[in-house]
Amino acid sequence: MATLLIHGGAGTIIEADRAAYEAGLSEARDAGFRALQGGADALSAALIAVSLMEDNADAFNAGTGGSPNRDGVVECDAAVMSGWDGLAGAVGAVTRAKNPVQLADRVRRDSPHVMLVGAGADAFVGDPIDNTELLTPRTRAAFGAWERDKGEPANSATVGVVVCDAEGKLAAATSTGGMLGKWPGRVGDTPLIGAGTYADRSVAVSCTGKGEAFIRAVTAKALAERFRAGGDLQGVVAKALEEVIHFGGNGGLICVTHEGRIGFGFNSLNMAYAWKTDRADAERAEAAEVGLEPGIYTI
Amino acid sequence: MATLLIHGGAGTIIEADRAAYEAGLSEARDAGFRALQGGADALSAALIAVSLMEDNADAFNAGTGGSPNRDGVVECDAAVMSGWDGLAGAVGAVTRAKNPVQLADRVRRDSPHVMLVGAGADAFVGDPIDNTELLTPRTRAAFGAWERDKGEPANSATVGVVVCDAEGKLAAATSTGGMLGKWPGRVGDTPLIGAGTYADRSVAVSCTGKGEAFIRAVTAKALAERFRAGGDLQGVVAKALEEVIHFGGNGGLICVTHEGRIGFGFNSLNMAYAWKTDRADAERAEAAEVGLEPGIYTI
Repeated sequence: MATLLIHGGAGTIIEADRAAYEAGLSEARDAGFRALQGGADALSAALIAVSLMEDNADAFNAGTGGSPNRDGVVECDAAVMSGWDGLAGAVGAVTRAKNPVQLADRVRRDSPHVMLVGAGADAFVGDPIDNTELLTPRTRAAFGAWERDKGEPANSATVGVVVCDAEGKLAAATSTGGMLGKWPGRVGDTPLIGAGTYADRSVAVSCTGKGEAFIRAVTAKALAERFRAGGDLQGVVAKALEEVIHFGGNGGLICVTHEGRIGFGFNSLNMAYAWKTDRADAERAEAAEVGLEPGIYTI
Repeated sequence: MATLLIHGGAGTIIEADRAAYEAGLSEARDAGFRALQGGADALSAALIAVSLMEDNADAFNAGTGGSPNRDGVVECDAAVMSGWDGLAGAVGAVTRAKNPVQLADRVRRDSPHVMLVGAGADAFVGDPIDNTELLTPRTRAAFGAWERDKGEPANSATVGVVVCDAEGKLAAATSTGGMLGKWPGRVGDTPLIGAGTYADRSVAVSCTGKGEAFIRAVTAKALAERFRAGGDLQGVVAKALEEVIHFGGNGGLICVTHEGRIGFGFNSLNMAYAWKTDRADAERAEAAEVGLEPGIYTI
């Protein structure tokens, strides 16, 4: 039995982008799920799916296609956590990694630390790229529009994956370019273990939305703690999303339990999400959607 | 009624350092408590006490006297959180701030973000200093010894403060130079909201110890969530410290409740701590100690 659930960001997704989102979601979901069926563990499958979304230049705000900061630089955040052993890796404000989520995983595997940021994280990239390689026609245009409007920093489409593998082991991974026009050095909830990314032996969680609110709510850990204390999945997802509003933001989250149950929800206008499970009792065992109706769903 | 509790780090504190620790603790505690009695709110008092410990070159690992990283650079982490409004500010791997905790508070007040790291955080310092100004004879000697031994990164004395002010509002603030010999860009639990620093309307928490374990346990938020769910103070402190061991570390933490109750504990060899309260029912209303007996204490 295996379950994989991914998101491609919460916010407002315009109709013209729907096809690119759904194609990107399907590709990442299918590759991750195929790996699971081939015997990959939860974290390996999560890395495959997130890496594909990072490499997708047409839709998502992570890796290639990440949102530039105020200075036009793509600063990426990413984290991974393996639930069964509680090991985690994270990077913040990294500019020279093609796949920030893989750098986060290298921090987990090959350093004595959990989190590296800024120049120190860039120095740990094995095969550093020029930051402009992360820019795409889409993000150059978005940055140009943002500069003309002198807008506030704006959210866009973080990506994340939660997995329950055949052994019931859980993993979560999340990656983002952060907010368009953010201040240099800004780190959001994505790479903060317990805020945007978390996994233990009961549940794995990945969040997306206005990162500052998720940080202050410590959303992923709060959800996990309440679930472990006996809260029902629907209830803990609902409460986590309510708290994000209380802390001044909105967005969405996905989670999977050690029994392979799926929970997700959003209070932004839209969220891009997809899942696949071989649980015999699961209805709608396969989906790739750009959600149009905010709400909370458990399967 | 007001209560202020501070720590000057968990680990092994040698007898020769005891007098410097106790003097530094007393000075910071008294200044913070005086401010509270003069009408300062919780966060203002916390900033006063942490800033004094950052400026103390003789004892603590924060600001001046912070531990150099592998390259001999002092990279500081700090965070503040105000419980009543849930607002927070944090900086990671900042090298040019004399008082990192005040920079963290400026992020809270004057930016649209919660966390800035690395060069972006340094660019936000109003009055940047040369990094060598943070080095002291004590830390130069420690770094020299570490380099000769080619040791693993080693913990030292993070500082933190939790406060309940006359109105029952809570705040937490924590500051550190991190581990001696850490990798450049390493961020520990201190500036991660919910890991090393957290405050809500029920409890404020500041941690110290092996940061990687506190990150993976999301210690401060886990404690707060359990306390809010009805856990007794002694029990939630004990469970938080047990989890840190489970996640491969040790250390200590301090917390204060909205009723001005104090909780602290450590499973390292020692922890430096001090408190003051005008709660009529509190025994030992004043103390500045370097703890010699690991354990859990609630007052």
